[in-house]
Amino acid sequence: MIDECRLNMNVETMQRLPRIVVVGAGFAGLFAVQAMKRLAARIILIDRHNYHLFQPLLYQVATAGLAPSDIAWPIRAILTRQKNASVVFGEVREVDVVRNEVILENDRIGFDYLVIATGARHSYFGHDDWSDDAPGLKSIDDATAIRRRLLLAFERAETCNDEIERKRLMRFLIVGAGPTGVELAGAIAELAHYTLAKDFRRIDPRTAHIMLVEAGSRILPAFHESVSSYANRALEKLNVEVRLNAQVTHCDDKGVIINGERMDVGTVLWAAGVAASPAGNWLEATTDQSGRVIVEPDLSFKDLTNIFAVGDTAAVTDSRGIQVPGIAPAAKQQGRYVARVIAARLAGGKEPPPFRYRHAGNFATIGRNSAVIERGAFRLKGWLAWWIWGIAHIYFLIGLPSPLMVSFRWLWEYLTYGRGARLITGRH
Amino acid sequence: MIDECRLNMNVETMQRLPRIVVVGAGFAGLFAVQAMKRLAARIILIDRHNYHLFQPLLYQVATAGLAPSDIAWPIRAILTRQKNASVVFGEVREVDVVRNEVILENDRIGFDYLVIATGARHSYFGHDDWSDDAPGLKSIDDATAIRRRLLLAFERAETCNDEIERKRLMRFLIVGAGPTGVELAGAIAELAHYTLAKDFRRIDPRTAHIMLVEAGSRILPAFHESVSSYANRALEKLNVEVRLNAQVTHCDDKGVIINGERMDVGTVLWAAGVAASPAGNWLEATTDQSGRVIVEPDLSFKDLTNIFAVGDTAAVTDSRGIQVPGIAPAAKQQGRYVARVIAARLAGGKEPPPFRYRHAGNFATIGRNSAVIERGAFRLKGWLAWWIWGIAHIYFLIGLPSPLMVSFRWLWEYLTYGRGARLITGRH
Repeated sequence: MIDECRLNMNVETMQRLPRIVVVGAGFAGLFAVQAMKRLAARIILIDRHNYHLFQPLLYQVATAGLAPSDIAWPIRAILTRQKNASVVFGEVREVDVVRNEVILENDRIGFDYLVIATGARHSYFGHDDWSDDAPGLKSIDDATAIRRRLLLAFERAETCNDEIERKRLMRFLIVGAGPTGVELAGAIAELAHYTLAKDFRRIDPRTAHIMLVEAGSRILPAFHESVSSYANRALEKLNVEVRLNAQVTHCDDKGVIINGERMDVGTVLWAAGVAASPAGNWLEATTDQSGRVIVEPDLSFKDLTNIFAVGDTAAVTDSRGIQVPGIAPAAKQQGRYVARVIAARLAGGKEPPPFRYRHAGNFATIGRNSAVIERGAFRLKGWLAWWIWGIAHIYFLIGLPSPLMVSFRWLWEYLTYGRGARLITGRH
Repeated sequence: MIDECRLNMNVETMQRLPRIVVVGAGFAGLFAVQAMKRLAARIILIDRHNYHLFQPLLYQVATAGLAPSDIAWPIRAILTRQKNASVVFGEVREVDVVRNEVILENDRIGFDYLVIATGARHSYFGHDDWSDDAPGLKSIDDATAIRRRLLLAFERAETCNDEIERKRLMRFLIVGAGPTGVELAGAIAELAHYTLAKDFRRIDPRTAHIMLVEAGSRILPAFHESVSSYANRALEKLNVEVRLNAQVTHCDDKGVIINGERMDVGTVLWAAGVAASPAGNWLEATTDQSGRVIVEPDLSFKDLTNIFAVGDTAAVTDSRGIQVPGIAPAAKQQGRYVARVIAARLAGGKEPPPFRYRHAGNFATIGRNSAVIERGAFRLKGWLAWWIWGIAHIYFLIGLPSPLMVSFRWLWEYLTYGRGARLITGRH
């Protein structure tokens, strides 16, 4: 169905080659495809966006620090030289495990091996109707929509003649204090206190009230307690109010209810819950409570040994019993591992040992110049951690188009407080 | 209504100052405000976008060469240090000339002087229903919508199994061969023939058929004939088909009718007609056939001497009888001129002589490395004209935020064939 056209010359050779379909061009899927570069196979990468997204910096687009094209690259551009790979722009609806085909809206694509790397979405814990009033952050369109909301809140406050409404518009609330929530809160605080500080004439953006609300007893719960308290202090320095043990029980277009108390807020952002994409349903597989597929030690599905799940789609306990976290380096490692498994099977050779996760560390930033790094008993906080965070991210770019230009651009935005990307675009 | 809040300290002083309202932050409006920097006045700049747009390069965003934030800057950032100016994000509905107020959706703003610089929109010559099927290019949202259409056309052709439909999807038609039409055609040809050339596996983007359709007898009608024929040859080198004396009489989602002949086309873009924004209607002023206000020699309205029209809103014949063209340098000059007139009136001094336009030349580019410059009898074509065009545009950036970074970015996109900004965003 695919490839027959331009490759007429060697259609027969092509059709004899095994077909590997990868769904999702995030870190897991893209690195799986790139690791299969030398395989004598036809690799088809399907995604419903035409770009690979550098998700760790998505919060920067949402807070107007970077432009979308600074952190997203066309998948075709990344794979243009990998001749055994083709890209299909489309959305997978179902998988037919009897005929070994993935089903798109207007097409069916057969496979010998299938890698599902469809990532995660935000979860509202059964309150999906909150998504309009408390948007989450997973795609470029999410990020530009949040950017529009944040900037419009200040614009509306500037022209608002009602004191109470103006105060409401200047309140920003982030639900969930994992790394994304902490990063968003820090970046919004800097947007208000530095970038926008002198741009308005009636309001003073520095009086904006930014709140970070966490249901648990401390922020960054995946980190050590000393890291949590450091991050807490760093946020307070940025004038972010942190509320712990605070449960959001209601959400509408005027605000929220927290621990039974009504609070009028202009902008609510959701960074609380993550749920795997519905890949588990496609295959009626066993999933954990977040909807992630529980996979075998080689990351394949139970009873469907030619189908694999990687990245945020999979719940993986590695060969030493370590629960693999849902972060980019883990996705990358899983993508590469699956490529090795498939290569071994195609070659009829010995399969690699069960997947083993190498933990590089946990990272989180709190505004510019503050970050935390944790790796086992090693913990680093402050500006040095921030620079290591930055360099690690640039290192991570290797293999993507123009890492130097992107690094230069980031550095520029860092030095100029990202004055450039503050555009209100799209409908409002 | 505006300004009372943060400036409590000197509210009384402020309220005694004359109030100058400028509507529209394009070249004319922005340069008027900047030229009034030292005026003892309260200047209020109103725009329905939060950014100033560098319109001469908008076609680059539409064809994925540059990102929106490369050519648009927040108005507040540009004016942050100009303390006598404030920015209102909103849309003017009407002008009340009896009370001297502009009327916004939720507000009224009084003025002593009013400068209308609301620019132009595309005109479909009475066929406004064509705008969905043949979008024009005036704003950032227009540009990202066109970018999405162009990129989706190739994506759909790649997965299309019907030969005839695939051919239709690969046909691109631009209506109108003024500078914008010529630039769009050249840039789409380069997108197809270079940038995307090797990114697809079934289709060959180099076989895309790009047509430029002009109702008149030659392209670039405002230029000398020898320039038109040079541009024609340059477009043919890029494999753009130019059709002259070709009238579009119908337009729908499958294609167009040209000179009575039906043509199936995947993407139609409109670069044919320009009409002034409805500022003329607000004031019941005399307008020319494009809706531009016919102004007095000092750019004021007849009988409304405290109201001015500048840029594409105004039909200006200067003191030597020259019809001022609708281009950025002309808008800039008019904006600055009106600032001088208002300054003179406020000071009770002698008013400057009637507006006199200094023509720097006509420019148009045809893809990379080909351009034409015309100034009186002087004409330059080819790569040297292209570089002069580029340098002139960078020079034009002076006064806007970070001209160096932007120049660097342009150069980079030029060298790398703008691989970076090819994102399909928004709804489709």
